Amino acid sequence: MPLNIVLIEPEIPNNTGNIGRLSLGTGSHLHLVKPFGFEINDNRLKRAGLDYWKHLNITYYDSVTDFFSKNKNAQMAFLSSHGTKDYTDIPFEDNIFICFGKESVGLSSVIAEKYADSLYKIPLFSEHIRSLNIANAVAIVTYEGIRQLNLNK
Amino acid sequence: MPLNIVLIEPEIPNNTGNIGRLSLGTGSHLHLVKPFGFEINDNRLKRAGLDYWKHLNITYYDSVTDFFSKNKNAQMAFLSSHGTKDYTDIPFEDNIFICFGKESVGLSSVIAEKYADSLYKIPLFSEHIRSLNIANAVAIVTYEGIRQLNLNK
Repeated sequence: MPLNIVLIEPEIPNNTGNIGRLSLGTGSHLHLVKPFGFEINDNRLKRAGLDYWKHLNITYYDSVTDFFSKNKNAQMAFLSSHGTKDYTDIPFEDNIFICFGKESVGLSSVIAEKYADSLYKIPLFSEHIRSLNIANAVAIVTYEGIRQLNLNK
Repeated sequence: MPLNIVLIEPEIPNNTGNIGRLSLGTGSHLHLVKPFGFEINDNRLKRAGLDYWKHLNITYYDSVTDFFSKNKNAQMAFLSSHGTKDYTDIPFEDNIFICFGKESVGLSSVIAEKYADSLYKIPLFSEHIRSLNIANAVAIVTYEGIRQLNLNK
């Protein structure tokens, strides 16, 4: 399992759906940290046309504490508009965890301070845009990891 | 204007909205080719929270014919799940046009045949997924172009 994609307290079901599709399509392991801004259940997945969800390699966590306690020794990178390093400089390696905060406010200040050395940003070139859609951000970083790790060769 | 993002007959407003955000955030020129599967007007943009739309560098075309006749001499690359080359091999250059087909069926066979030498794919690693969300695909290719052209340095 090359890459781990982590969504911390995702709020918008359509984004999580797109990121699920991306996780499956890239062979990544998806980690979803509660609370969510929506419910995931069979009826909803069916209605949203997410028939591929059952094929996903996915782990659910009850809380941020639960996530960190179960992945103590993992190599982690965090995406944030406050990051000082470019996402292309993430030290990609097998089994790295790439972590994204919630849509409305991003990562909590507790996480951002604790992992200040591992905060990366996707560069933006307009004063009118604060951030990209989260699914787009996940896609950009995941495919950069695939490229750097030569997983597509 | 470094990159041109072209959506040929887009169907889903939420995707075009996300791609607009990405175009603005990356300083790209967005080209939208009609017919659309939705209407773009001030009321709808306002309701969807796309208050940044007015800052976009955007060109609308009445048809595929209109688009190609107005951009005769442009360098073009087309994204398709039937592409044989990897998107990282697109010959990125200033003002290249990166073109995407509609969500439901991708590029028309007329375009795919005419530009067979310029069809690129984003690699996928699961039999359960035919393609990525189009906004995610645009994000991956656009940021690979930015990386290769050193626009973020």
